[in-house]
Amino acid sequence: MTSVQQPVQPSVTTGPISGSSKIYTEYDGLKVPSRRVNLTNGEHFDLYDTSGPYTDENAEIDVQKGLPPLRADWVAGRPRLTQLAHARAGTITEEMRYIAAREGFDPEFVRAEVARGRAVIPVNHNHPESEPMIIGKKFLVKVNANIGNSAVTSSIAEEVEKLVWATRWGADTVMDLSTGKNIHETREWILRNSPVPIGTVPLYQALEKVNGDPAQLSWEVYRDTVIEQCEQGVDYMTVHAGVLLRYVPLTAQRITGIVSRGGSIMAAWCLAHHQESFLYTHFAELCEILREYDVTFSLGDGLRPGCIADANDAAQFAELRTLGELTKIAWEHDVQVMIEGPGHVPMHKIAENVRLEEELCGEAPFYTLGPLATDVAPAYDHITSAIGAAQIGWLGTAMLCYVTPKEHLGLPDRDDVKTGVITYKIAAHAADLAKGHPNAQAWDDALSRARFEFRWEDQFNLSLDPDTARSYHDETLPVEAAKTAHFCSMCGPKFCSMRITADIRKYAEERGLTSTEAIEAGFQEMSETFVANKSQVYLPVVQ
Amino acid sequence: MTSVQQPVQPSVTTGPISGSSKIYTEYDGLKVPSRRVNLTNGEHFDLYDTSGPYTDENAEIDVQKGLPPLRADWVAGRPRLTQLAHARAGTITEEMRYIAAREGFDPEFVRAEVARGRAVIPVNHNHPESEPMIIGKKFLVKVNANIGNSAVTSSIAEEVEKLVWATRWGADTVMDLSTGKNIHETREWILRNSPVPIGTVPLYQALEKVNGDPAQLSWEVYRDTVIEQCEQGVDYMTVHAGVLLRYVPLTAQRITGIVSRGGSIMAAWCLAHHQESFLYTHFAELCEILREYDVTFSLGDGLRPGCIADANDAAQFAELRTLGELTKIAWEHDVQVMIEGPGHVPMHKIAENVRLEEELCGEAPFYTLGPLATDVAPAYDHITSAIGAAQIGWLGTAMLCYVTPKEHLGLPDRDDVKTGVITYKIAAHAADLAKGHPNAQAWDDALSRARFEFRWEDQFNLSLDPDTARSYHDETLPVEAAKTAHFCSMCGPKFCSMRITADIRKYAEERGLTSTEAIEAGFQEMSETFVANKSQVYLPVVQ
Repeated sequence: MTSVQQPVQPSVTTGPISGSSKIYTEYDGLKVPSRRVNLTNGEHFDLYDTSGPYTDENAEIDVQKGLPPLRADWVAGRPRLTQLAHARAGTITEEMRYIAAREGFDPEFVRAEVARGRAVIPVNHNHPESEPMIIGKKFLVKVNANIGNSAVTSSIAEEVEKLVWATRWGADTVMDLSTGKNIHETREWILRNSPVPIGTVPLYQALEKVNGDPAQLSWEVYRDTVIEQCEQGVDYMTVHAGVLLRYVPLTAQRITGIVSRGGSIMAAWCLAHHQESFLYTHFAELCEILREYDVTFSLGDGLRPGCIADANDAAQFAELRTLGELTKIAWEHDVQVMIEGPGHVPMHKIAENVRLEEELCGEAPFYTLGPLATDVAPAYDHITSAIGAAQIGWLGTAMLCYVTPKEHLGLPDRDDVKTGVITYKIAAHAADLAKGHPNAQAWDDALSRARFEFRWEDQFNLSLDPDTARSYHDETLPVEAAKTAHFCSMCGPKFCSMRITADIRKYAEERGLTSTEAIEAGFQEMSETFVANKSQVYLPVVQ
Repeated sequence: MTSVQQPVQPSVTTGPISGSSKIYTEYDGLKVPSRRVNLTNGEHFDLYDTSGPYTDENAEIDVQKGLPPLRADWVAGRPRLTQLAHARAGTITEEMRYIAAREGFDPEFVRAEVARGRAVIPVNHNHPESEPMIIGKKFLVKVNANIGNSAVTSSIAEEVEKLVWATRWGADTVMDLSTGKNIHETREWILRNSPVPIGTVPLYQALEKVNGDPAQLSWEVYRDTVIEQCEQGVDYMTVHAGVLLRYVPLTAQRITGIVSRGGSIMAAWCLAHHQESFLYTHFAELCEILREYDVTFSLGDGLRPGCIADANDAAQFAELRTLGELTKIAWEHDVQVMIEGPGHVPMHKIAENVRLEEELCGEAPFYTLGPLATDVAPAYDHITSAIGAAQIGWLGTAMLCYVTPKEHLGLPDRDDVKTGVITYKIAAHAADLAKGHPNAQAWDDALSRARFEFRWEDQFNLSLDPDTARSYHDETLPVEAAKTAHFCSMCGPKFCSMRITADIRKYAEERGLTSTEAIEAGFQEMSETFVANKSQVYLPVVQ
């Protein structure tokens, strides 16, 4: 493992995603990035891009130096208020304009959503390298990826590459959950090289400072840790302030008890001291600190269910009610707030989670871990949780914390991180479609047109993972010609279901007919046309 | 590729799934199989088992001979009626009793559901090797796996192994979609060695008989093909009789037109002949044939949407209405019926599909392909479709046709088949949980208890895929001791969130306290106990 003595030389993945190029669009003074897919038909399609300068072939990347401080001048040029304070004062910040351009909304709409607390913009004044993004139910559903070394394994260099790798595939924020050695140094490397907001759980580092004994934790140790992380530039922090002494026994009859690490640490502290936690009793002071840096609260669900049987129980909802009270206190201090949610929840109990969160927490953005819709598939929990994540996203959850195939079993490697991110981008986009986000379906339509017109390269390049799509196609039909062939690999070259439609559509379009008119126009002609063009139904075998 | 001249010597996967053993339970004269997981705490948990004799270590497998004809005597000992006719006559067949035992329902309930057409039992008199199973909304959600060689690739031996492999991991039925050479011979090998019902699309073989020219198809060629397949023992057949001439132009404005192979073949025929298809005009004769063998109709959705934009459109629902009319005709002939559904549907449009199918088709079992909840992730369509499949299963769909990672790109290999089946078992079980199937949650609870009690081997063995779960765990913590260690690999050995609950639970259980009483009892004692046992929070590092 890299230690403080040995200088780190992380090598990170750079260069555009295959078939795409990085472009920047000018919106009065702001340069907003997109992933542009250049299509073989001369058109192009632009996608929301989280990858930062790493996918810009003209960018000079030096991880020793870190990324350029995009936001430094903005922050320097105005009073050091939180985005919430600015929004309440009627100010539209550069971050809000950047986000408006990025998501295709009016800047005033962005300000209004932040002002009412229904959206957050996690931007610590001391993390100027980040590209502004927003988390709120009215916007694109976002995805968080967890990284971080642990006592068990992994080095700083690996974590920096995981950060770059996760944002390359679409992670909107990254949480550094490091628990091993060099927590401070690892976080420094991650922050200076991150184009997305970074979240942490300060309790983990505080616990290290007291040698892993929850009973020895104190407000002073915790406070100093929070200030240390605020100074470094952490954008949002998970705080398990809703775990109250009287809630702990409510977990006694559960099948899996307390599964949140932070929640169990605080429960242990409460039991050892027989009093409410310092996170709860000092919450107002905590607000003062976070406000100074514009760090966003992510109020942790320390009592979230760890299995299907424990979902939506008294312990979980008691804590949620307390998180609602804390949300109002944070808002009184102009501090932005998100609310964390489960976990493990069967499909028929998912809606209740969103309804209660919105009712109790004033629609503060909901940020859930999955939820997993069943417990029976360890090694496939990216899928069991994507099923729940897509639904809870549709119902209004603003950000989805990814789950990798290693959940419950081990620590994710680089491949697991990619699988987790892609799986969650699927869940988030499926939710955007179901919510009717104005820009969501254009992407599906562009890819489906490419599919129908047998523009194979465009189909690959428009997908979430062009490399894997191309390699799967080539396994069956490696021939280059197959990529321009007018048939789908599923049916084989002899006959393809999609071809027939070309004839029907051609017929209708040539005559500008609606479907009904086409019927009136008489099928006799149409069928003659078809028989005449019958040869079109046959396709060349490329083998 | 294996030809008729060379004898086939397929080798198939045999032996129990790791950590499980095959057991047979006697229910007045019937031996019903289960997958028994023997737990390290002395208990055991039995799971529904689709794998047939292949996972029975005592079974003698000879693919040349085929499986023993389990149902031969039952069929010989009674009038050759369909299960629907028997059910309507008030007869409870051996198949119904077998299914009742398998799913934990009363035999009379099974009969009643079949009698009203809300469930089907696909059992061709000539496929006595199959173990009876039922498809209906009141029962466990079932999963179908598609196999079959094509003009592009794969041999008979590969397909027989794919059959055994798919049922090993939980496929409830298998469709043989072979389109290349040796269709008849491939199907014969599959049928004689299949413990699950086999479905086909007779149109594919009929098309081969007319050299791939849809216009040359005729009722006579099709009828003879259907009879040939009925004689072999095919249990259910996809028939695209709902594709009417006047519906074809309704697809003209679609982005992806007609994506069903059978649908496009029939559309081509309708256009070429300018008349309604022989499937529609000869439907009553077709019913007469299927009734003779008790072959179940799977009325195909030839005009299903092939992309998000085309979901729930006029063409799709026009065909569904016609399938409803055909359902009633089939029922008049005592023929069992399922209805096929899409396809590509965004989450907010899924419910309408189930509602309309139940209304128009009298609750005949719905059998859907996914649906995919987005088009943007080729290479991950097992996941995009599992999101839709879990929801549509919850809403009442009786069987889910799997989608593999190769969908839209190529033909699935053995690994893709396993991934597709496991992914769909997840979607089906998530749906069973949400529907509140009486036996569903016990499985999640058993695995979650194993997880909470750190019974790692039990956690692996209770999962859908023990091999992968174990290998992922060993990547991070290969040490054998780690499998008995009291910590979760995610957190590392130093501190584990689940341990704290043991203390709380122990405290409550010892005193038989409810949570509230525990509070009354006073936390002072509890916290003292906790401090005294503090060492329990620390765990030995096994590294």
